[in-house]
Amino acid sequence: MKTIQAATYPVHFHAKSYLELSNLIAKKNYSTIFILVDENTIEHCYPKFIPNLSTNKRIEVIEIESGEINKNIETCIGVWNAITELGGDRKSILITLGGGVITDLGGFVASCFKRGIDFVNIPTTLLSMVDASVGGKTGVDLGVLKNQIGLFANPEMVLVDTTYLETVEEREIKSGTAEIIKYGITYDVKLFNEIRSNKNLKISDLIYRSIEIKNEVVLQDPKEKGLRKILNFGHTLGHAIESFYLESEDKENLTHGEAIAIGMVCECYMSSKLLDFPAKKVAEVKEVVVSIYTKTNLLKEDFTAIMDLLKHDKKNVNGQVNFVLLKDFEDFKLDCKVSDELIIESMAFYNS
Amino acid sequence: MKTIQAATYPVHFHAKSYLELSNLIAKKNYSTIFILVDENTIEHCYPKFIPNLSTNKRIEVIEIESGEINKNIETCIGVWNAITELGGDRKSILITLGGGVITDLGGFVASCFKRGIDFVNIPTTLLSMVDASVGGKTGVDLGVLKNQIGLFANPEMVLVDTTYLETVEEREIKSGTAEIIKYGITYDVKLFNEIRSNKNLKISDLIYRSIEIKNEVVLQDPKEKGLRKILNFGHTLGHAIESFYLESEDKENLTHGEAIAIGMVCECYMSSKLLDFPAKKVAEVKEVVVSIYTKTNLLKEDFTAIMDLLKHDKKNVNGQVNFVLLKDFEDFKLDCKVSDELIIESMAFYNS
Repeated sequence: MKTIQAATYPVHFHAKSYLELSNLIAKKNYSTIFILVDENTIEHCYPKFIPNLSTNKRIEVIEIESGEINKNIETCIGVWNAITELGGDRKSILITLGGGVITDLGGFVASCFKRGIDFVNIPTTLLSMVDASVGGKTGVDLGVLKNQIGLFANPEMVLVDTTYLETVEEREIKSGTAEIIKYGITYDVKLFNEIRSNKNLKISDLIYRSIEIKNEVVLQDPKEKGLRKILNFGHTLGHAIESFYLESEDKENLTHGEAIAIGMVCECYMSSKLLDFPAKKVAEVKEVVVSIYTKTNLLKEDFTAIMDLLKHDKKNVNGQVNFVLLKDFEDFKLDCKVSDELIIESMAFYNS
Repeated sequence: MKTIQAATYPVHFHAKSYLELSNLIAKKNYSTIFILVDENTIEHCYPKFIPNLSTNKRIEVIEIESGEINKNIETCIGVWNAITELGGDRKSILITLGGGVITDLGGFVASCFKRGIDFVNIPTTLLSMVDASVGGKTGVDLGVLKNQIGLFANPEMVLVDTTYLETVEEREIKSGTAEIIKYGITYDVKLFNEIRSNKNLKISDLIYRSIEIKNEVVLQDPKEKGLRKILNFGHTLGHAIESFYLESEDKENLTHGEAIAIGMVCECYMSSKLLDFPAKKVAEVKEVVVSIYTKTNLLKEDFTAIMDLLKHDKKNVNGQVNFVLLKDFEDFKLDCKVSDELIIESMAFYNS
C-alpha cells in the first residue's frame, strides 16, 4: 500500500514500514531505542515486531499497564523515571507499540522528556490505526476528563501493519469500527454504505481509506479551528458517556467505540431536531450501531451525571457545550448549541 | 524602555507593558484570566499588579507553594485540577506572576492544558527577568533532576517591571546576578567588567542588556543545537551542585545563582586546563563570585554524589557529560569532554 504523507511525517504500511523504520534509526543515529508496550503488546505484538527491526542500537523495553484507567500523568511519571534510569538522553527515540493509550501517552511522554525526543507510533489496534495514527494529538486524562492534558506533537513516522489486528479481541475491532463509521457519516457516505451493506469489506482497505480521510481533514486544519471539529462527531456526548462508565464502579466500562457509537446516534437525533437532518438517516445510523454493538441501556437516573461530565468537555468555551451536528451526510455545522432537554431526549431516543 | 521583539512575542517594559497586556486581553477576548502566584507574590506583587490590569473579564487566582522543591509534576496536577474546577477552557489565558518556578511551571501547565492555552509571563525576581523571561523553555523537575520534563513553548507576551524587585530579598537579587555575570563572561565582557568594577550599575540597565543578549542568542538557535549552549556555561556542574544541596536534608539549599556561580568558577578552571583560558581571568571570575556570594565549602565526601548527579544532566548524550568551556571571554567551545579527575580538581580549586 502506498505511503500516505501526513503533515511532517509519513505513514508507511506493512513490510515497507519496517524497512523505513530501520533506515530512520540508522540515519538519525539514535543513542537508545525505547519501546513502550503494555502487558498485551509485549506478549502478542513485540515478538512480531522485533525480528523486523534491523539495528545494532541498544533497545530498552518499558511496560505499562493497559487500559484507559492508566492513561494518566502518574503513568507518565513512571515512564519518565524509567527512561531516566535507563540512561535516556536527548538522542533517544521512543517507539510506541500498542493501542491509543500507548500511542497517545507515549507521544506525550516523548514530547515532554528533556523538552522533546523523537517518537514513532506503531498502532496495534483498529481504533489506534484509524484514529490515533495521524493527527498529532497526544495526551492523557486528568481524573475522568479525557485528554485534558496533552500537546499537538508529530511523530517521525507511523507504521501500520494490519497483521497486529490478529492479536486483538473482537470487541476491540468493533470499537475501532465506530471511528470508521464516523468518517463515513461525516465525510464519505460511500464508506458508510459499504459498512451498512456489510459486503466486500476488506479491513485493510477500510483502514487505508480512514487514514486518508483523517489526514485530508487534519492537513486542512491541524489545530482544530474549524473543519477538524467534524472528527468530534459523536464524541461530545460520547466522551461524557465513556467517562461516566469509567468512573462508575458498579458498571462495566464501555469501549471508546461503544460510547462514541451511542454518541453518534444521539447527535444524529439532535441534528434531526435542529438542522433537519433526515429522520430516515438517523434510523440508518441507529440500525448500523445497534447491529454491531451490544445495546447499552442508559439509565434515566444517570443522565444528570452524564450532563455534568459533558459540561467539562475540553472543547467547551465559556462553559458552553459545542456540538458538531449534521445537515446531511457529509454536510455538517460546527459549534451548535443544544438545550439540556434535547440532549436528554436524544439519550432516551437511543434507549428506545 | 524600548520593547524587545523575541521569537514570536514582545518583551514590554514598565508602564507600557500593562497597557499592552490589557490590549491583548481585549483583542483575544479570553474567557477567563487565570493568574498563577505563590504565597509571596500574592502578598507582595499581586497588589501592585492588579490595579494596572484593565479588563472586565473574570479573574481567578491560583496559588502554589514557592520553592524549587515544588517545581514538579505533582504541583502541575494541582494547577490543572484547579483550572478545571474553575471552568478553564481553551480560550482561557494563564498569567504567571512570580519567579522562575512560577514562570517555568506555569508555561508548561498552560502549554499542556487542553493541548495548549495562551500564557503571559510576568517575572518578579531578578533571576526570572534575566533568564526565564525569554527563550521559550518551560518545564518542571523530575525528582532532583532539573527541568527534566518540559517543552519549548512561547508566551504571548513578557512583562518586565523592575519595581517588583523591591519585593524580593537581597539573596534573590544575588542569585539573578549570577546569570548577568554569565552573559558578561560568555558574550559581553564589557558587561562583566561593569559588574567587576561595581560602579554606575543601574539594575534596570543590566536587566535590559541581559534580555537583549539572551534574545540574540535564542533567536539564532532556538532549539539549542549550537550557540545557545553557551547559556549553559556554569550550569552543567552548577545544576548538579544545586540538585545535591536540594536533596541533602542536612544542608541548607543553595539558590540557583549561588550554585551556578560555583559552577562558573569550576568551569573557568577546567577551561584553563583544557583550552588555555588565561589563569588571570579564572582568578577574576573567582574574585567576583567570592565577593558577591557567601563562600560554600564543598565537602570532599560529597564529590561522588555530585558527580552522579552530573551524569544525569539532561544535556548528556550517550552518558557523556558535555561542557561549554571558554577559550577566552566571549570565545567558547561547545561539547567539551572533561575527565572526572579534572571536574573534582575544579571543585577543590573553588574551595581553595
